[in-house]
Amino acid sequence: MTNNEGVTKEPEWRIKVEDGVIWKRAETSRTMWTFIASLYFNLCKFMRKSWEIGVNDPRKFIHCLKVGITLTVVSLFYYLNPLYDGVGGNAMWAVMTVVVIFEYTAGSTIYKGINRICGTTLAGLLAFGVHWVCSKAGEKFELIIVGVLLFLLASAATYSRFIPIIKARFDYGVMIFILTFSLVSISGYRIDELFDVAKARISTIIIGTSLCIMVSLIIRPVWAGLDLYVLVIGNIDKLADSIQGCVAQYFELETSDEESTKNIIGYKSVLNSKATEEALANFARWEPPHGRFNFRHPWKQYLKIGATMRRCASCIETLNGCIDSENKTSYDMKKNMSAPSMKVGANTASVLRELAITIKTMTKSNKLDTLVIEMSNTSQELQNLLKSYPNTHNKNGTEVPYDDDDEKFEIPIMEIIQVVTVVSLLNEIVVRVKDIVKCVEELSNLAKFEPSILSKCNKSKQHLADNKISPEQQNDEETIIKTIQIV
Amino acid sequence: MTNNEGVTKEPEWRIKVEDGVIWKRAETSRTMWTFIASLYFNLCKFMRKSWEIGVNDPRKFIHCLKVGITLTVVSLFYYLNPLYDGVGGNAMWAVMTVVVIFEYTAGSTIYKGINRICGTTLAGLLAFGVHWVCSKAGEKFELIIVGVLLFLLASAATYSRFIPIIKARFDYGVMIFILTFSLVSISGYRIDELFDVAKARISTIIIGTSLCIMVSLIIRPVWAGLDLYVLVIGNIDKLADSIQGCVAQYFELETSDEESTKNIIGYKSVLNSKATEEALANFARWEPPHGRFNFRHPWKQYLKIGATMRRCASCIETLNGCIDSENKTSYDMKKNMSAPSMKVGANTASVLRELAITIKTMTKSNKLDTLVIEMSNTSQELQNLLKSYPNTHNKNGTEVPYDDDDEKFEIPIMEIIQVVTVVSLLNEIVVRVKDIVKCVEELSNLAKFEPSILSKCNKSKQHLADNKISPEQQNDEETIIKTIQIV
Repeated sequence: MTNNEGVTKEPEWRIKVEDGVIWKRAETSRTMWTFIASLYFNLCKFMRKSWEIGVNDPRKFIHCLKVGITLTVVSLFYYLNPLYDGVGGNAMWAVMTVVVIFEYTAGSTIYKGINRICGTTLAGLLAFGVHWVCSKAGEKFELIIVGVLLFLLASAATYSRFIPIIKARFDYGVMIFILTFSLVSISGYRIDELFDVAKARISTIIIGTSLCIMVSLIIRPVWAGLDLYVLVIGNIDKLADSIQGCVAQYFELETSDEESTKNIIGYKSVLNSKATEEALANFARWEPPHGRFNFRHPWKQYLKIGATMRRCASCIETLNGCIDSENKTSYDMKKNMSAPSMKVGANTASVLRELAITIKTMTKSNKLDTLVIEMSNTSQELQNLLKSYPNTHNKNGTEVPYDDDDEKFEIPIMEIIQVVTVVSLLNEIVVRVKDIVKCVEELSNLAKFEPSILSKCNKSKQHLADNKISPEQQNDEETIIKTIQIV
Repeated sequence: MTNNEGVTKEPEWRIKVEDGVIWKRAETSRTMWTFIASLYFNLCKFMRKSWEIGVNDPRKFIHCLKVGITLTVVSLFYYLNPLYDGVGGNAMWAVMTVVVIFEYTAGSTIYKGINRICGTTLAGLLAFGVHWVCSKAGEKFELIIVGVLLFLLASAATYSRFIPIIKARFDYGVMIFILTFSLVSISGYRIDELFDVAKARISTIIIGTSLCIMVSLIIRPVWAGLDLYVLVIGNIDKLADSIQGCVAQYFELETSDEESTKNIIGYKSVLNSKATEEALANFARWEPPHGRFNFRHPWKQYLKIGATMRRCASCIETLNGCIDSENKTSYDMKKNMSAPSMKVGANTASVLRELAITIKTMTKSNKLDTLVIEMSNTSQELQNLLKSYPNTHNKNGTEVPYDDDDEKFEIPIMEIIQVVTVVSLLNEIVVRVKDIVKCVEELSNLAKFEPSILSKCNKSKQHLADNKISPEQQNDEETIIKTIQIV
């Protein structure tokens, strides 16, 4: 019986196993393992991607070390007795200053540092004035006077942050002004030795700021100005590649491999770099002279160049869209228009690359005018060819003399829509590239670029010019371009 | 003699006056007055312009008052003894929190507040852990352990701020984490009752944050989400006006008065709104459900709509540029192409306006499909007309039957370049508007827009729909659009 019972129970138990708890358990445990595995996989992916940000731009690693070092140094004010005796608990303000104002670029660190010092000092002085008035008026009025003034000043200062020019240059300073005024004026109600406290705080803030600015400027500085400069040069090159790539793709002379597709869509990063350019230009003006940039380098002009580049880029985007449209041009016409169109594309790209070299070497180019004239001429030739096309080509694509009226053939308008559009857009691109040329020329005047006299005699001018930027700096700049693309 | 001397001296004196000190003095005083006057004039201009920012968007005035009120309220922790006894000198942290985290939109205030609380708490706990380990390890190791950990954590946390997803959502939190960890871990070296201090600080930070979030949400809240929503709707309307205006200007049916020029260049603000859109979408996700937006409203989709709109806008920009080009179309051809082109422009504008209404009313439009088909048809008709143009029109602009081969006339290609380009670009714009339609449809699915059933029966659907937004809200939204244009 016992055996029988055991036999009869076994299948029951087996059935239980098959669609019951243990299966569910196995299921749950598998789901959990899948979940953990996917979590681990995602985490690894995230870590790898995060690591790559620094590998692509090692300046980011260096920045982190700089922050770490500065913070450790400033914390010595707490640890070392001779330093602590000088500033006491106010050492906190030095630490706070370092954390808050140490930014990636030197320009933004200086901007925040100066704003912090000025905001603190101004607000501190004002708060002392208020405190003095209150002490004369008597304690019972102090609460009312300080309260009303705090309300009014905080409201007014907050309002001033909406004004574009103040927002761009002193936003942080105004915030610090409100902060300091509030703290000092209301502390006055409780702390008797207000002046000593305030003096210690301002001095620790100055210590923190100076340390940040020094570290930021001395250890491998990251210049917002240089970043802007490299960004603009990189964008000009991208535009050149984009134009040439687009034309080549349309006339099917280029197989669309990964490299050429990447070149063609370069215009997209030009279209997207407005915010970065503005931020960099804003910080660049706070930077001291560095490298080849003097104190009043016309950073704003780079924004103008950026704006004209974006206009050109949006034209390339339209060209890119039109190329994919349904109206296909006849093979013959495309073949005939190919060479002159490619020439326009190549000349436009040459002009843009010459502009990039002009900015890179900071020397006025004497090839530029010739290149611009060449670009205009080829563009005009292309248009003339298009205009005279029905007269000079018959349907078989063989050329006939222009004056031979009897041989004239008509081309269906359907077949020329696309090519006419492409030529028009190329023409429009040429016009917009001329705008970029004007802007760069303005920059060369404003920034007093040197005229390059040697270039005509010396064929290796470009090499010379390129060598002005040291290989290390060049590497650095390539990294910057990469970085900015990521951002 | 004295007289004579006087006479002889007078001319000398006069000469002295004429090119000497007094003239200079007068000159200086005049220059000074001019300087003061111009300073006064510029100051007045600056003040007027600053004032207008608030007049155009009264929410900015209200925001300033909100900051003033919150700051005054939080300063009561200093003034009122029962409150001061609770938190003591740590009331400073509440004031600091209010100044630092109170931002214009509710979303950004919540973002900063939550980041501040989480960053502080996490870093505080970690610092306590470190402090506990140090207290076990002995005082002589404390300096080394804390120093090394501070360096490593500060570097790692700073690095994490470069990772896009952390930068977008937790940038402020990471900064506060570094700040708190530094302050607590190094304070542990000097302050014995670290736990009490930290508890008081965290509680004051929570008090400050709660106060800010409450004021920000209760008194006339400024929603980043609503701003984004209104910005996108406004931009769609601007695109519609721009397209219609451009076509009308080209076919010279519109005299270019100030109003129409303003309409045409509407695309520019579409091109420039990327940064604003991204910032608003980033803050909108922190906001609680408000108005017609639920908790998981697909704010990201607005960014997609914005991107497709910018693609359309860059096409309009190119169209605008091509219109001004040298190649002028013959009057006859332009006249003949005018009506169908205008129709395409009008239909495209209708589709865009319908999209704006769809988003505004948050109801799926059942007119939209018809409008899109109509737009595609008119665009196809326009192309067909262009393709058959040489066959159906003679040089005098009178129509001839299509099959009448003998009457066929040829049109010089020069005369059609511009019109072909304009038609191609209009076609491209139609294609890109279809992309916008797709994106808005995606939004309507994601945000579960209600289907509008009544619309077919009720001719006054649009009125009804418009009325869903109260007049006050409408006013509010108009103000927002104005504001965002200024920003």
